[in-house]
Amino acid sequence: MGIEALAGVKALTYDVFGTVVDWRSSVTREGGEFGRAHGIDLDWQAFADEWRGLYQPSMEKVRSGQRPWARLDDLHRESLVALLEKKGVTGLPDDAIDHFNKAWHRLDPWPEAVAGLTRLKKRYILATMSNGNIALMVNMAKRAGLPWDVILGAEVARAYKPQPETYLRGAEALGLKPEECALVAAHNNDLHAAAKVGFKTVFVLRPTEHGPGQTKDLAAEPGIDLAVADFQDLADRLGC
Amino acid sequence: MGIEALAGVKALTYDVFGTVVDWRSSVTREGGEFGRAHGIDLDWQAFADEWRGLYQPSMEKVRSGQRPWARLDDLHRESLVALLEKKGVTGLPDDAIDHFNKAWHRLDPWPEAVAGLTRLKKRYILATMSNGNIALMVNMAKRAGLPWDVILGAEVARAYKPQPETYLRGAEALGLKPEECALVAAHNNDLHAAAKVGFKTVFVLRPTEHGPGQTKDLAAEPGIDLAVADFQDLADRLGC
Repeated sequence: MGIEALAGVKALTYDVFGTVVDWRSSVTREGGEFGRAHGIDLDWQAFADEWRGLYQPSMEKVRSGQRPWARLDDLHRESLVALLEKKGVTGLPDDAIDHFNKAWHRLDPWPEAVAGLTRLKKRYILATMSNGNIALMVNMAKRAGLPWDVILGAEVARAYKPQPETYLRGAEALGLKPEECALVAAHNNDLHAAAKVGFKTVFVLRPTEHGPGQTKDLAAEPGIDLAVADFQDLADRLGC
Repeated sequence: MGIEALAGVKALTYDVFGTVVDWRSSVTREGGEFGRAHGIDLDWQAFADEWRGLYQPSMEKVRSGQRPWARLDDLHRESLVALLEKKGVTGLPDDAIDHFNKAWHRLDPWPEAVAGLTRLKKRYILATMSNGNIALMVNMAKRAGLPWDVILGAEVARAYKPQPETYLRGAEALGLKPEECALVAAHNNDLHAAAKVGFKTVFVLRPTEHGPGQTKDLAAEPGIDLAVADFQDLADRLGC
């Protein structure tokens, strides 16, 4: 355990929502804009948390085989429509819903993320290992300046993390062994799943992902190779 | 026809072998290195042309359903082993063959390619639309500095150009309509196939791809939207 565990790593694969980008503040901001445009007064921070709360259940239907493969953009949209209905918001035009749904394409990175990734890119292949679909990842990266070498994850593997295929098919697509890949994530459960199939693991502390009252993922759990403060710290530790 | 046809384009998708990189000079150079390392004296320029000559027949077996899906790295390797045997070269260790096979990961870009792409990237999504597999495209891009936003093509679509699925699944992955994508290629047949499914088309002149005696693809054929001298010219025409 520690930095020496990462000696043979060639690709850093990244969880994105929460690890690279601050979805909660960004979706709250987008909610405010949506509300002002359509005269809807809601607590948009609570709305962001509730929308995100539907994320795992929506993917679980795909993982369990209860429904066929669906992209995260489509799962997000179904959750959004259901949540707006629950709040009594109906009758909006499709393009207004589509625009708000694409809030997930316009998430802001954590402050040091772009600078840290830019340093790490010089020595490592930088890949997304996200449940976000390709269009979402590309549009987010273009807007935010995230310097990915390649977009992997759910849509390439047709499996949602933490299903093992997601990590394994990503490594295979890169022509690398699992132990030549490290998952970088702010979530212990994602890291444990990646470790189980042979990935190296880097925990990044994002103590306000869920707001000031966050109670989980405040430290790396046993079994994780390395814990870092942020991507600049990771670049320092890896000598980039 | 002309630049106005490209007004609604959001993504430039690129053929890579021959259009972005000079496979012939690069594989010839790699052949020379392979020959010196293993004491093999062959005409490596002729070897590069013969190896490339096996490219379409090897993919045709996959396209026709005669064999199951196989990545270009594996097709290249089978062609290489067959060609070396034909030249009387046998008994080399697997890792020597593997290294030479990965010559295709180490192709040099045409002189203006990186600078032109870097300008175009500011306004367009830049995607590969190549029959090369993901690892090949990633390793090539890292070495050569090609600033792709996303790697699409054969392995994402599980279809080889000019099969229509290759282009259509690429556009779908980007969340774009076919007419919001342009294929940029030095090959008329690739451009015609992309146009047939609704892509816009840009012909780039690469008059020495096949050496000084090249006889085809010396001009855009009728039906192609725009012809440019190179990627800097394309960036000029698109106002990047």
